[in-house]
Amino acid sequence: MSFIEVSADCDFPIQNLPYGVFSTKDNPQHRIGVAIGDKILDLSVIKHLFNGPVLNGSQEVFNKPVLNDFMALGYPAWKEARARLQELIGVNCDELKGNAELISRAFVPMVSATMHVPAKIGDYSDFYACIYHATNSGLMFRGKADPLPPNWKHLPAAHHARTSSIIVSGTPLRRPLGQIKPDLKKPPVLGPCTLLDIELEMAFFTGPRSKFGQPIPADKAHEYIFGMVIMNDWTARDIYGWERDPFGAFLGKSFATTISPWVVTMEALKPFTVPNMEQEPKPLPYLKHDDDYNFDIKLEVKLKADELDRPHTICRTNYKYVYWTAKQQLAHHTINGCNINPGDIISSGSISGPEEGSFGTMLELNWKGTKNIDLANGVTRKYVKDGDEIIITAHCQGQGFRVGFGDCSSKVLPAIQM
Amino acid sequence: MSFIEVSADCDFPIQNLPYGVFSTKDNPQHRIGVAIGDKILDLSVIKHLFNGPVLNGSQEVFNKPVLNDFMALGYPAWKEARARLQELIGVNCDELKGNAELISRAFVPMVSATMHVPAKIGDYSDFYACIYHATNSGLMFRGKADPLPPNWKHLPAAHHARTSSIIVSGTPLRRPLGQIKPDLKKPPVLGPCTLLDIELEMAFFTGPRSKFGQPIPADKAHEYIFGMVIMNDWTARDIYGWERDPFGAFLGKSFATTISPWVVTMEALKPFTVPNMEQEPKPLPYLKHDDDYNFDIKLEVKLKADELDRPHTICRTNYKYVYWTAKQQLAHHTINGCNINPGDIISSGSISGPEEGSFGTMLELNWKGTKNIDLANGVTRKYVKDGDEIIITAHCQGQGFRVGFGDCSSKVLPAIQM
Ligand SMILES: [Ca+2]
Ligand SMILES: [Ca+2]
Ligand SMILES: [Mg+2]
Ligand SMILES: [Mg+2]
Ligand code: NI
Repeated sequence: MSFIEVSADCDFPIQNLPYGVFSTKDNPQHRIGVAIGDKILDLSVIKHLFNGPVLNGSQEVFNKPVLNDFMALGYPAWKEARARLQELIGVNCDELKGNAELISRAFVPMVSATMHVPAKIGDYSDFYACIYHATNSGLMFRGKADPLPPNWKHLPAAHHARTSSIIVSGTPLRRPLGQIKPDLKKPPVLGPCTLLDIELEMAFFTGPRSKFGQPIPADKAHEYIFGMVIMNDWTARDIYGWERDPFGAFLGKSFATTISPWVVTMEALKPFTVPNMEQEPKPLPYLKHDDDYNFDIKLEVKLKADELDRPHTICRTNYKYVYWTAKQQLAHHTINGCNINPGDIISSGSISGPEEGSFGTMLELNWKGTKNIDLANGVTRKYVKDGDEIIITAHCQGQGFRVGFGDCSSKVLPAIQM
Repeated sequence: MSFIEVSADCDFPIQNLPYGVFSTKDNPQHRIGVAIGDKILDLSVIKHLFNGPVLNGSQEVFNKPVLNDFMALGYPAWKEARARLQELIGVNCDELKGNAELISRAFVPMVSATMHVPAKIGDYSDFYACIYHATNSGLMFRGKADPLPPNWKHLPAAHHARTSSIIVSGTPLRRPLGQIKPDLKKPPVLGPCTLLDIELEMAFFTGPRSKFGQPIPADKAHEYIFGMVIMNDWTARDIYGWERDPFGAFLGKSFATTISPWVVTMEALKPFTVPNMEQEPKPLPYLKHDDDYNFDIKLEVKLKADELDRPHTICRTNYKYVYWTAKQQLAHHTINGCNINPGDIISSGSISGPEEGSFGTMLELNWKGTKNIDLANGVTRKYVKDGDEIIITAHCQGQGFRVGFGDCSSKVLPAIQM
């Protein structure tokens, strides 16, 4: 229990305590905060209270404009910070609760804060780890006989992606321009994307630095995983379709990627652990870990448009459908000696469930353009229109509380005029 | 003419003045230097001398451990810095030459310096812009009829690559481990790469920040290009071969990428401008620029091995074979609104010339494994062996001087034991 009031349907109870970076009108300095109820606890104000054995000499990590230095400290520091925060916000400790002056400086109403990308992101890798999504893609583009690529069950496939255009929830994006082929028999033209899609993903931030040349073993990989955010990996299907041979997505995705602002720690997700998916054939030993590292995170995508009286749900799915665990992703990513830095971001790839209505891309929801996605009152979509806002939410349901991620939302503005 | 002596075959005369980041035993602080002859001019020591109208208020950019802040200032600052450096190092100015005390602090012998990656690299994009290389790849893997992908002459293709494992010349790398298929009919195994290759490339660093959502026009793109380095984009052909469907290279390249330490500015390369390659069909208007932005840079790859008495040349080629100019690459990269930051790195892709012996990968030199690459005394290679060192050099030849890049070299160490 916290001395801050938190309603049962609030994403941010004392069981959560996600980290983010915010600023306010009064104080434009970017600083680290923790979400609790409808407030933000400003860690730059209470950094002196982190006086446990691990953090005592490292309090300055809470006085930075990004989370990287805190991420770099690793699991013992993350654990101590969480325990201390639960103590300070709890009802039995007076250090914060009993200090009205400190409280007045330390808490900021969430509504008055502007959120920022929480880390200086060094590298961004986009996996393809959900079996239902990969199967759907295969059914649409590879054929029924063998929908999965031959390597799919042997390794978690991924590609590198663009960090500069990662934006935080609430930031609008412009419909991208690019080479498209309205007439497949004619040369390409330059124009606004006509098939603007979403990709519902979850992504994790990496923790301490790993050594160049040194793989991270699968059974130690959790020590390098700080926490997770929701991601919308916007995709221009037509730009991608023309550019993809031979290297896959480049401009079809690099124009924007939206993430939710609050990094929910793996410690907060632990109570919602569910069994890993069955893997057959058994993966190679370097990809094996004994513990469950899969999570029951309920995901929902809503589309908001002027034509609708309220946002309409287009997808309900769950993180638990990710076949390759985050630990396997990281073990694979580093098996070749590739090093990670604090603040790298690694996404699951699009998440789809087994049934219709649980698909995490409009490409799957409209089944390659063959059906309409029904919203309400006869309003339909195949892809995202100018003015539409896509709102993704995620939460774990506890007994009388939820551990949530806040919103991951962005509105699409018309393409610029060239 | 400089008051520092520079021999005619030295890479670093007063016409060059490339920027790098170095440290010394006495002073482990990373700092910005300029190469002149066999010396480094420490800009942190002479930053107060940059007192022109553009740089006067920004001298602190020369007191940083990376070049990003200087890159961020843009072309007027780069131009003023170069002019001032040529003045200070020249024979007609006494501000530096006449100050023995300052000289003793400002110049460091190159042999006593350790070089570092010159920028905090935010994103790394790897193009595929050389027509002879793309044609060779197509001849080997797509067939004779249509070696180039259908989009190749319409757009400069590229993929995102890994920044964390970019290393500076002189840093050794380990042979990567990964999933390979020694028997194509059997499941993959984990093992050391058996087909370790090089990719000879040139890469440019980007200058000022561009705006999210805002394309950079081709005819303004040079304002965002700071300078160039040599790059060896190490590639594990067997790891790549198995992982590549459907997303292309991930672990096959992310284990290491070597760059040369000195960033040669575009201003220094200007006298070596040559006509752009003919482009047919004409590219779309957003890819057009009127000026020549191609450069006569002589490239050479040497292999050094214990079995050889001296490094042996395996490739001689030239940057001028790059079909899509750096300006076109940047215009394409940003047409979808993707923003760039100071210190992003963008590479040409492998550079090959039209004839045998001018191919920039061992894959082409051994023509998909069908021939040996002859070194000397019966020593041959198909791919890189443990203990081999690959040394790439690049220079422009002037009348009695050369504008060179220094070495881009790394030695391959055996794979780690799992
Ligand atoms: Ca994706
Ligand atoms: Ca390459
Ligand atoms: Mg994206
Ligand atoms: Mg590489
Ligand atoms: Ni890729």
